[in-house]
Amino acid sequence: MNFNLSGNRVNPLFSNNLPPAPHVMSSKPVNNCAMNASFFDKHRIRLIQAPMAGSQNHRLAAAVFFAGGMGSIPAAMLTAEQLQSELSAFEDAIASEKENVKATQWDEFLPVNVNFFCHTPPPVQNEREAAWRQKLAPLYLAHGIDPKSVGSGPGRAPFSEESLKLVGQFKPAVVSFHFGLPKAQWVQQIKDWGVQIWSSATTVQEAQWLEQQGVDAIIAQGLEAGGHRGMFLTEDLSTQLGSLSLLPQLVKAVSLPIIAAGGISSPAAVSAAKALGASAVQVGTAFLTSHEATTSALHRQALMSSSAQHTALTNLFSGRPARGIVNKFMRDFGPLNAQAPSFPLATAAVAPLRVAAEAKGLSDFSPLWSGQNASDCEALPAADIAHKLLQGWA
Amino acid sequence: MNFNLSGNRVNPLFSNNLPPAPHVMSSKPVNNCAMNASFFDKHRIRLIQAPMAGSQNHRLAAAVFFAGGMGSIPAAMLTAEQLQSELSAFEDAIASEKENVKATQWDEFLPVNVNFFCHTPPPVQNEREAAWRQKLAPLYLAHGIDPKSVGSGPGRAPFSEESLKLVGQFKPAVVSFHFGLPKAQWVQQIKDWGVQIWSSATTVQEAQWLEQQGVDAIIAQGLEAGGHRGMFLTEDLSTQLGSLSLLPQLVKAVSLPIIAAGGISSPAAVSAAKALGASAVQVGTAFLTSHEATTSALHRQALMSSSAQHTALTNLFSGRPARGIVNKFMRDFGPLNAQAPSFPLATAAVAPLRVAAEAKGLSDFSPLWSGQNASDCEALPAADIAHKLLQGWA
Repeated sequence: MNFNLSGNRVNPLFSNNLPPAPHVMSSKPVNNCAMNASFFDKHRIRLIQAPMAGSQNHRLAAAVFFAGGMGSIPAAMLTAEQLQSELSAFEDAIASEKENVKATQWDEFLPVNVNFFCHTPPPVQNEREAAWRQKLAPLYLAHGIDPKSVGSGPGRAPFSEESLKLVGQFKPAVVSFHFGLPKAQWVQQIKDWGVQIWSSATTVQEAQWLEQQGVDAIIAQGLEAGGHRGMFLTEDLSTQLGSLSLLPQLVKAVSLPIIAAGGISSPAAVSAAKALGASAVQVGTAFLTSHEATTSALHRQALMSSSAQHTALTNLFSGRPARGIVNKFMRDFGPLNAQAPSFPLATAAVAPLRVAAEAKGLSDFSPLWSGQNASDCEALPAADIAHKLLQGWA
Repeated sequence: MNFNLSGNRVNPLFSNNLPPAPHVMSSKPVNNCAMNASFFDKHRIRLIQAPMAGSQNHRLAAAVFFAGGMGSIPAAMLTAEQLQSELSAFEDAIASEKENVKATQWDEFLPVNVNFFCHTPPPVQNEREAAWRQKLAPLYLAHGIDPKSVGSGPGRAPFSEESLKLVGQFKPAVVSFHFGLPKAQWVQQIKDWGVQIWSSATTVQEAQWLEQQGVDAIIAQGLEAGGHRGMFLTEDLSTQLGSLSLLPQLVKAVSLPIIAAGGISSPAAVSAAKALGASAVQVGTAFLTSHEATTSALHRQALMSSSAQHTALTNLFSGRPARGIVNKFMRDFGPLNAQAPSFPLATAAVAPLRVAAEAKGLSDFSPLWSGQNASDCEALPAADIAHKLLQGWA
């Protein structure tokens, strides 16, 4: 790993003793682009391991960090206590190589991206939830589940006051958001701490909105990406763009560094993203089969089988469209079902079915999150995967 | 332009006096890949102008050919007489530079790709067509159209015996198909003439099927592409992949040269496709605003406006999903409407509405075909566009 430069990360451009990078000396006004591009240049971060709630923890994040990329800790499915524990565990993992890390000049910042969802929880929808459970009743019956035992609850929590406190306490180098941004006051507090703020855009409009809100970098989430679509200014899936179209349009539309995400699973795809103007790439699917991921055996099996050739956007597992490998539940109910409760309320109804099916070795009701190209998935240490991908940037 | 090698195109590998290319000398059996990759290598064809029925004729094809790419003549909306006339006109355009062309060693082949649709016409569906016209009745009324005057008919014709005769007569270097392939006997005849056969694949399965049928190259049509989806083994739109995922998967799955299509509109995107293993790229949208295209003024205007940021797949204009800029008709009826007649029978019902609206300067009922990235569209000679794109291959 080859981090360069020291400096106070609050204002990275003017805090080191080296002359400014050539692009800073151009006649163009020093805009956010020049300011923030330096985060990727300064830390030589070109590969970000995508946050994948439910399939990984601090171990994967640390492995990718030590391999020269930036790891991510997904917070969406963790309580505050669990997140605290994850961040502490990451800190410990880093501490074991403290001298090395110190040399990388991350100062007081934890070299990790903590990812939060920031949806507005929907109003209670008891009738809709009851109707959905009614629809699933034959499945509950078939799997010996008492419908009355099926729980309720959101399944995923948005960024909160408690989350903010943990950010202030642990100072991750980066906080990234999915589904827009939390309230402006919290965004400002995070910025004041000198923590980078990133968020996902799926359209030109979303990227422009995020730029106006003052984010430091934008993740261009192409339609190929696995997991939840980050879309937040529209619910119209026809607006969603393939990476090859989204990435260059965002590079043109905003003056912030763009992180390419969606369909990037090989060194060649990393090179392609670089050619299209990305400042870094974010890779998820290729890490799902890494040794350090917590991906279930059934999920790993699906990723490495030909069934991974067919993924679809589905709202069945959470209420929002997310990309996963097509399985029985998606086939039988249609991947996008208008009757499913709103995000994240759809989560609870399918949970016991998943448990029952998985106990029988079936992934019929498991969310098999995957991007559109799982063909590069290999069962390898995350470091090997990261090193291979980074060859594409050279 | 820098074509190299002479030779009989029927068997290009063994027909020139130069030693075989290094990949031919490898220990791997000489497969179709080695055989056909040489078409792109031999002729140094890296850019194919996508066939765009309704928006171009031989003039664009000739301009792109003279600029170092390969032009295409779309046959889907032409009668046999019109196609004959187009091919003659292309021949004449080439003849004016006969010495130059002769030097390029295309032998008796016309250096052009003639593109055909090869759908199976649907059975008559009078009731469905009548119901659809009933649904459009208020629109006919609003535009002063007598519903009884609305014609019927397919709008687009598949490859036929007459098409085959013209191929035999004019010997285009390439015949490409959309929606699979025509009957095996015709495919064999075209191959026997030494004409290259290409077809579009939108999934791994389609590519493998085409390879089994003996095509010479496969067009990887990413979801970003404008116009009709070439899908033919499935009608499930969730199977459709973004270019960044489709292209590398097809490169891995078959041993034929892959032409990247969908979202390629800049030199950077050409470089990206090359990095992902494409043997050539096919570009449509970027040529729609070229001087030589016959694109309507309204269509050009839409392509160069911000409305081009939102395209969608729609079956309203023909009956099959095709990507175009979202307009009033698509918004009001939903871009994908299950009641629309089957391809290509939906064409006739909207035709008079288009004529009436266009007369008022409105594109409300026009098919505004476009890929997902029209942001590179410029009003330029096709040669300038081709030269710029080819910089990305270098």
